Formats: sequence, structure tokens, C-alpha cells
Amino acid sequence: MRAIEFDGDDLRLRTDYPDPVVPPGEALVRVHLAGICNTDLEILKGYMDFRGVPGHEFVGIVEHAEARDWVGKRVVGEINCSCWQCPTCRAGRPTHCPNRTTLGISGRDGAFAERLCLPLRNLHPVPDSVPDEEAVFVEPLAAALEILEQVHIRPTDRVAVIGDGKLGLLVAQVLSLTGAEVHLVGRHPEKMLLLEDRAVLHLEENLGELQVDCVVECSGQPGGLALARTVLRPRGTLVMKSTYHGDVSVNLSALVVDEVTLVGSRCGPFAPALRLLERGLVSVQPLVSAVYPLSRWMEAFAAAQQKGVLKVLLDMRA
Amino acid sequence: MRAIEFDGDDLRLRTDYPDPVVPPGEALVRVHLAGICNTDLEILKGYMDFRGVPGHEFVGIVEHAEARDWVGKRVVGEINCSCWQCPTCRAGRPTHCPNRTTLGISGRDGAFAERLCLPLRNLHPVPDSVPDEEAVFVEPLAAALEILEQVHIRPTDRVAVIGDGKLGLLVAQVLSLTGAEVHLVGRHPEKMLLLEDRAVLHLEENLGELQVDCVVECSGQPGGLALARTVLRPRGTLVMKSTYHGDVSVNLSALVVDEVTLVGSRCGPFAPALRLLERGLVSVQPLVSAVYPLSRWMEAFAAAQQKGVLKVLLDMRA
Repeated sequence: MRAIEFDGDDLRLRTDYPDPVVPPGEALVRVHLAGICNTDLEILKGYMDFRGVPGHEFVGIVEHAEARDWVGKRVVGEINCSCWQCPTCRAGRPTHCPNRTTLGISGRDGAFAERLCLPLRNLHPVPDSVPDEEAVFVEPLAAALEILEQVHIRPTDRVAVIGDGKLGLLVAQVLSLTGAEVHLVGRHPEKMLLLEDRAVLHLEENLGELQVDCVVECSGQPGGLALARTVLRPRGTLVMKSTYHGDVSVNLSALVVDEVTLVGSRCGPFAPALRLLERGLVSVQPLVSAVYPLSRWMEAFAAAQQKGVLKVLLDMRA
Repeated sequence: MRAIEFDGDDLRLRTDYPDPVVPPGEALVRVHLAGICNTDLEILKGYMDFRGVPGHEFVGIVEHAEARDWVGKRVVGEINCSCWQCPTCRAGRPTHCPNRTTLGISGRDGAFAERLCLPLRNLHPVPDSVPDEEAVFVEPLAAALEILEQVHIRPTDRVAVIGDGKLGLLVAQVLSLTGAEVHLVGRHPEKMLLLEDRAVLHLEENLGELQVDCVVECSGQPGGLALARTVLRPRGTLVMKSTYHGDVSVNLSALVVDEVTLVGSRCGPFAPALRLLERGLVSVQPLVSAVYPLSRWMEAFAAAQQKGVLKVLLDMRA
């Protein structure tokens, strides 16, 4: 099959990549669309030391599974494949299973290929009312919802989102559903305008005194954390969503003095993300900057790395 | 001025009711629309032992205030008038001030009149994009949001709302914004259909096993509490929104055995309610069953007490 492989140095399109061998309990999925995430771009810089086929945002059709009623179903899939037997899994925290593999990120080939494998228990059927171009956003939308799993955001809270990239715009939309006053801090007015009905927009260089109750750092930049600190009130909560390769220098004492709570936040729940798309409460299609056929993958990755570009999708059938 | 007065036995329209005398720090508001709430109907049965002009859901225009920049502003108003000096107020709980009066409910004439008085600090200007017919719902919408102030509802939670009256339909809409799976339990299919895109609908008599994480009792009926208990999982949270005249017999030991949390929930924050209306995330106009001119107030109250009727509005200018 055709697949984009990362060998530790470069990406290349292979046309002779071996088809996945389907283990018991897993499904073979024919990928329709896959999204390019910042995490994929970080993988190319060395993040997670990954080798193989990257890509973890997808929608596709089940081509093969032992449980025949899954075959032909249009699905999205949770990316963490857990052992379900260790103490962490048994304690109800399977996305933190120490034995896990993660689609296209760690120990398991991903979605930038014509076919992928995932455990059946990871799959979620997509309702007919949600088209492929929306369903491919379920994974990052779930990651945005994880914030609301972890932190109690009240309707009277003032919250801020640092970063006007694709994740920041999803997070700001999800936070606006709480009724809270939402501030979006970014660098690209044309991207931020997508949120003008739901948030107060601030250019990073003109940022005044905000003093919010909760700030979510989604800039994908090491400098985002310091910027997030400047808008947070004492005893506030700082949610960290960015993942990047390398370490960042942090003034921990200032966090102690201001009694700040730092919350790391990663993958989230798929079922509520699908419900929000079904209910029409989140708008994702305006976030699509371009759709490229797999055959033009190099242009797609070049576009995804440009400033001002939002989500780039790959059509794995073309 | 014209005003509807409750004398402890009956309602009557008076045309010679004295105009309010505006105390310092307060504003005189010319009422446009006022909504009839279940609490008003309970007042007629003796709830709060109230005498005077009932009515606490309104939108109007400021006609007089010492602070001249308020004059001419279209406003809604928080109904609890607090002393701001007692320990409860100073602790940040003014809606529980022991010295408070409450618009049209306790110690202060309300909105079923051509004019009312409220402290300026209670008023919220209404954005131009929110018409009167929506703004008049800010008070009950805020009461629905109070649930999300008090209880952390997670996107993965399963929640239920008991009651398909006007408050239940608002509460179900607000809960659906969280991404949670929402179940609406009622008796009137035609009313529940307003929520078909956002909730799973259940008729009370066909209610199966639900076992939700949180249930909100909005039935306005003493029997609603027992029904709410049947759908709640052990260690779940039961939010009580109904207020009615008289006591209810409750099996407290069963609450202890199942380690249920009961949360009483009343008035909520106006600012986020206005934000949700501005963002177009809550649909209130379909909840209006009828608008009557003040001159036809008897028909309006008769309609509001009929089963299957949702919000009845009074136009105080007509």
C-alpha cells in the first residue's frame, strides 16, 4: 500500500509499504482523510523518537474485523492502545497505560497510509449527519474537551487561550460553550476572526491586564508558557496543551509564590466530541486550509508548516 | 400606574397603583416584557407569603437614575437586592444576604407593573443583537447556569433533567453545551421535541434504567424528587431546582446508603446568560407560548397554568 514513512531523518512516500497484519481484537481501517497536527511536525524534529508511519487524526471505513458488524462502518479512533490489564488501566486511566502504543506517535503505524489497524474498542462509529471533513477533527476536538474533564470552568469565569493555531481555535470554541468570558490571544488577525462571535480577540503585542481564572496554553511554542503566566491571576489554573521536542526553562518559585495550579492535558474523550459535532455546537470546517491528495503529500507538509495556515488534510484515496 | 397586585387571596389589575419612589442608588425601569414563572404561580398559593406586585423576569428601559449614563439603556436585572455590608455579602455570597429583598418575591414590588425599581448594581445592559423576546429569558437562563457554577459536569458525564417545563427545557439546553450525554424526562412529547437535537427524550412512564452521574429536578412537582432518585447512580449528584409551597416527605436514609449529594440551586449569573444568547448557543424564542397585553392579564395567567403551555409573556406597554 501507499504510506508516508519517517525514518528518523526524512519523510518519504512509499508505494510498497506492507499492508498491516490485523491482530485479534483489531480492525483494518481504510483511511479516507487524515489531518496533519503540530505533533506530527514535532515528530519530524525528533519528538517521541518515532519511526514509521505518523498521523493520528483520521476518519475511514472498517474493511476487516472479526466482529463482522463493524465491517463497512465509518469510524474515527482513539489513538491510545492500552493493555487493559495493568494497575493503571484497572484504575480507569487507560490513556496513561505504561504499556500503551499510540497511533502514529509511539510504537504503532499511523494514519498517513491507505490502511491502519486499531483495536475495535478504540473505534467510534460516525453518525451520518457528520461528514468526513468534520469527523477528522474528532481527535483534536476531544483533546480540547479534555480540559473540561480536568478543570471545572464556571460560567462566571474569565478564561484565556494562548495561541490562534488549529488547536487554540478549537479550545476557544469549546470554552465558549461554558458561558465563560473567553479571551483569545494570538498573532494572526485573519485566523482569530473565526472566533469573533465567541471570544474577545487580543493581539499578543497589545495584550493588556487580563488576570483570568484559567488560561490554556496552546501556542505550540516554548514561549507560550511565560505569556500564559502574565494573564493568569494568583491561585489561577494554567492548562498546558502544547507538546514539543526539547526542554523549557521555567521559574518554579514564581509559580509557588502565586500559588498557581499547572495542569498537563493531552488526549480527550471521543464520544462528547462527536455529540458536539452532531449538535452543531462547534464549527470545524472553517478551520480547513487545504485538502491535498496523498500523491501531493510534500506540498501538504510544506503548507502545514507555513505561518497562518490552519488544518491541512490528506485525502488517502487520491 | 397600572400594576397587577396580589393581596394574599387574589390577583387584580390596579390602574391607580402608586409609581415607585426611587431610592438613592436605584433606577426606575419602564418594563417592556415580563415573563410568568412557576414561582409566580406558587406565590398565588402562598409561597414566600408575598404581598404586592409579583413578577421577576423582565426586560425594560431605564427611565430615571442618578447616574445619567444609565438613562435610556435597555436592561435586565438581577432580582436579589442585597445589603452589601453583612458578613454574608462580604464573603461574596450576596444572593444569600439575610437582609435582602427579592424582586416580586420578597419585600419588593416586581415586574408585573408598568415600572419597577432596582439597584443600579443589579442591572445589566442588553446587547443590541439580543431582542426583548430573548432578553426576558435571562433570569431563568441564569438560574439554569447556576447548576454549572455549583457542579462540575464533565463532557463524559451522563446527565438527566426531570421536567419538560420551561425551566427544564432551558436546563437541558445548557447541559447539552457541556458535551455530556443529556436525557430529558417529561410528560409532553410536543414540548420535549424542542430538544430532540440535543437530548435523548424519555416519557416518564417508559423510563428505563438510566443511572446517570447527575440529575436535575425541574418538574416543579413534589413527586419529581423521587423520580429523580430512580435515575441517579450511587454517589451521584441530585440538583434541586423546583420551588413550591409546602413540605415533601423524603427517605433520607436511602440518600445516606447511596451516598447521594443533594444540591439546592436557585438564582444564577446574568453575564454568562447574556453571553450565551449573544453567541446564539441557546434557543429561547421557541419556548414562548403566547404574549398577552397587560390589559388581558387574566387570560395570560389562565394560560400559564394550563398543562402543555410553556412561557407566557406580558407586554406591559399594551
